[in-house]
Amino acid sequence: MVQAALAAGTASRRCVFELFGRRLPEGRRYGVVAGTGRVLDALEDFTFDPATLAFLEPLLDGPTLEHLAGWRFSGDVHGYAEGEVYTAGSPLMVVEGTFADAVVLETLLLSIYNHDSAIAAAASRMTMAAGGRPCIEMGARRTHEEAAVAAARAAYVAGFASTSVLAAGLRHGVPTAGTSAHAFTLLHDTEEDAFRAQVASQGAGTTLLVDTYDVAEAVRTAVAVAGPDLGAVRLDSGDLGATAAAVRAELDALGATGTRITVTSDLDEFAIAALAAAPVDGYGVGTQLVTGSGHPTCALVYKLVAREDADGVLQPVAKRSTGKTMVGGRKWARRRYDADGTAVAEVVGTGDAPPLGEHERDLLVPLVLGGEVVGREPLDAARERHARSRAELPIDAQKLSRGEPVLVTERV
Amino acid sequence: MVQAALAAGTASRRCVFELFGRRLPEGRRYGVVAGTGRVLDALEDFTFDPATLAFLEPLLDGPTLEHLAGWRFSGDVHGYAEGEVYTAGSPLMVVEGTFADAVVLETLLLSIYNHDSAIAAAASRMTMAAGGRPCIEMGARRTHEEAAVAAARAAYVAGFASTSVLAAGLRHGVPTAGTSAHAFTLLHDTEEDAFRAQVASQGAGTTLLVDTYDVAEAVRTAVAVAGPDLGAVRLDSGDLGATAAAVRAELDALGATGTRITVTSDLDEFAIAALAAAPVDGYGVGTQLVTGSGHPTCALVYKLVAREDADGVLQPVAKRSTGKTMVGGRKWARRRYDADGTAVAEVVGTGDAPPLGEHERDLLVPLVLGGEVVGREPLDAARERHARSRAELPIDAQKLSRGEPVLVTERV
Repeated sequence: MVQAALAAGTASRRCVFELFGRRLPEGRRYGVVAGTGRVLDALEDFTFDPATLAFLEPLLDGPTLEHLAGWRFSGDVHGYAEGEVYTAGSPLMVVEGTFADAVVLETLLLSIYNHDSAIAAAASRMTMAAGGRPCIEMGARRTHEEAAVAAARAAYVAGFASTSVLAAGLRHGVPTAGTSAHAFTLLHDTEEDAFRAQVASQGAGTTLLVDTYDVAEAVRTAVAVAGPDLGAVRLDSGDLGATAAAVRAELDALGATGTRITVTSDLDEFAIAALAAAPVDGYGVGTQLVTGSGHPTCALVYKLVAREDADGVLQPVAKRSTGKTMVGGRKWARRRYDADGTAVAEVVGTGDAPPLGEHERDLLVPLVLGGEVVGREPLDAARERHARSRAELPIDAQKLSRGEPVLVTERV
Repeated sequence: MVQAALAAGTASRRCVFELFGRRLPEGRRYGVVAGTGRVLDALEDFTFDPATLAFLEPLLDGPTLEHLAGWRFSGDVHGYAEGEVYTAGSPLMVVEGTFADAVVLETLLLSIYNHDSAIAAAASRMTMAAGGRPCIEMGARRTHEEAAVAAARAAYVAGFASTSVLAAGLRHGVPTAGTSAHAFTLLHDTEEDAFRAQVASQGAGTTLLVDTYDVAEAVRTAVAVAGPDLGAVRLDSGDLGATAAAVRAELDALGATGTRITVTSDLDEFAIAALAAAPVDGYGVGTQLVTGSGHPTCALVYKLVAREDADGVLQPVAKRSTGKTMVGGRKWARRRYDADGTAVAEVVGTGDAPPLGEHERDLLVPLVLGGEVVGREPLDAARERHARSRAELPIDAQKLSRGEPVLVTERV
């Protein structure tokens, strides 16, 4: 596309692309923006290096290779800030630049947003279902090795307390945590040997895995080895609610009243909610988190919504579609609240925005201006924003059942 | 775990870990091994660099940091060759080494295998449904940016003809292909301008996207611009079967009898099969491929199955489980055929394997010996192996409906 547009003289036309979803994944009440910080890092690093140009050489003509050799994105990006909730039709990113500049961002932006936002949306439902109990991200083994690091980051934005992926700690500053596996117990001649080895190395505050053989016996051994200050025990199988209750009673009887109980084993938001009344102190979540709990992608798209015509005038454009919501033109977007401060609508319009209403706030913030990243922020800022943004939603956002989006999209 | 085992003197115990799935994803008839080549590359690169060690420094003790600083995997890995089909209980990888060596591979091996094999399993169903028609991988925008490259590779192993991910061409030698987007048509003042620009740049053999405005008119314009030697047209919306029939008739009437029709638009194996009778020449598949068509992960696990005891004798070990198939001991595995050469069973055993039967073949091949990679092969070898291995399966493997695995697992 870039090569043909360069030759046709249209590559330099000023364009506006929009990143949005026509709808939320089926049944979901709200979406969660995640990946913004990763997009900004990737945009800064996005160049065509000599190895890439050598690979492209047989595919492209001379002027195109020359264009790419010196290319850096030099346009503007406005977008929803990371952690913000969104709904159908929310213009999550508005990218402005020449066609040649903006069109090559499509796969990069969509890949990061479709993945990270899918994980964050699932994570947000899980942390909501968990109430104040911490969720630990443990899904790295069930997804691509790099997606795992991004998933840990997105889960943290959506309220997870920590991750077992050390690389997410190294690269993104996500707090890390972990426990031992059954292999560690099986390695040793007895469960007691394994517990002694772990406590000697990690201290009594560690988390001992107690379901390799017999749970009740393992709990007795654990407290005998670590003492009543044992940090936690982990359950990874069986009926977690009933077992947690039995283990709590046993721990209390042994004087280990402060020892926490962490549960794992194919948890999702529904299983977490079902354990609300059980004496559980934390949830380790794996597969269902990193696969988006039924929705591994968000169906976000990147569409040209306006471009200069031959006279240099910016014109709205749109594909002719049946049944697809496709509105041309550069968008603005606001969240509208009712008098009680509950968010009720996403107001999306084109052209000049009217003055901001009393119960409204603007959603688009500058992320990149003239190719320079201006929207970078600490990951904790995104995490705090998500907590605030989610807290503003109507009470129906807390329903885990399938239903309609809680924010109505108003096009003006 | 490594730190505690080093201190306890158990880190050097010889161990056997096994990578396998307790079951196939629900309803699937067979699995497809993919990611083996990526695992071998990753194993060779797996060291703890100074930045990583600096990050780990506050978490680990001196002896552990020292151990990791010089660490390279020095054990053995045997496994199913890439592209091979598998079933429940197939020992896809058998890793032997010290505990400290083998335990740190868990996340790396499982991440790659759970992702790549999930994509390959979906891709195999799609290429089978497509019959001889080529499938093009186009899903990068709907998954993590690095997972996208691995997905393109896995899809190629399972019979896809090409990918739109140029990075998969650069890194893995997967053939690349692509078409233009609606944005390219919308960029230009008229559809004819867009087609002229594309044909001028790419030649008449290019693929023109004909559903931005009116399909029938676009097809007329396309042939008028490119001539009857136009390579292909792409349809990305509407009723693909009916539209393809109308476009085929129109192309033939215009003399463009050799122009192919490529269809895209949320295809999965079922939609591909439903188009079998339509005049379609190729399928572009995106979202459903990169998300594993309902099964984004394979639920493969990595378990300790044997380890030295205090006397240096290798002992089978297994967690005590209810309802989980968990067999201790180092496995061997063979595929058994009936007299007609149809594969019927996976024979999995422990201990010394009996002599190979007339209608059997061994499935485990050496991949890494003493830390040295010995199982590397060209990607096309894996692709050809998959085609052969799939062709041996019973006819029920071709059913897209949910059902039982076609290979029975026999434990001996």
